[in-house]
Amino acid sequence: MLEKFLRMSALLDFYGALLTEKQRRCLELHFLEDLSLSEIADRFEVSRQAVYDLIHRSSQVLEEYEAKLKLVERHAAERGVLERILQSTEEFAAAHHLQDCPELKRILRELASLIGKTGEA
Amino acid sequence: MLEKFLRMSALLDFYGALLTEKQRRCLELHFLEDLSLSEIADRFEVSRQAVYDLIHRSSQVLEEYEAKLKLVERHAAERGVLERILQSTEEFAAAHHLQDCPELKRILRELASLIGKTGEA
Repeated sequence: MLEKFLRMSALLDFYGALLTEKQRRCLELHFLEDLSLSEIADRFEVSRQAVYDLIHRSSQVLEEYEAKLKLVERHAAERGVLERILQSTEEFAAAHHLQDCPELKRILRELASLIGKTGEA
Repeated sequence: MLEKFLRMSALLDFYGALLTEKQRRCLELHFLEDLSLSEIADRFEVSRQAVYDLIHRSSQVLEEYEAKLKLVERHAAERGVLERILQSTEEFAAAHHLQDCPELKRILRELASLIGKTGEA
């Protein structure tokens, strides 16, 4: 379920704006806020089957966009490179006893914020 | 025209896969390979007006995707940050006489390749 959650979270982040408001909200409630199909059905005043169909179809739409644009895949690859650069730079700073150098600290901070690791550097 | 070319080039790069083969090819021929509407009309054996309409509509489709997903805008912003990091790192290397340090050279090379400046670093 965690894997499915992470996948849907990434797909919604990139392609959510291409769904209808109802499609997006349904997926968010189910995958990000962990509501059951019945709970969503109650909230939207539709049948459980209708919610199931909507979620199934909307997930397919998101996967179809990813199959064409590969934004999630490309982003993950780029993030991997950035994380390697950040690690190399930290190792470089430690090896040369430059951890307290202000320019290098700023570079590390900017790299971290680009990866979304703000505050860790 | 250069501005329009750069815009279309970026939009096609991100969203081209969402167009039909004919839409994409028409935009490429016109904006990237600089063919006139009449030349494209000859090639596809359609009227000049039909090519005009196709290009006009396809450009709109690309702009609509950008309005929703903002990938071109987000990519440009991220590239700006990466270029600043690259420049800061180069300045840091020069200031500390570390230009020949292999680890730092590798970090600079990886940053440059991420920006698409391979071979410059």
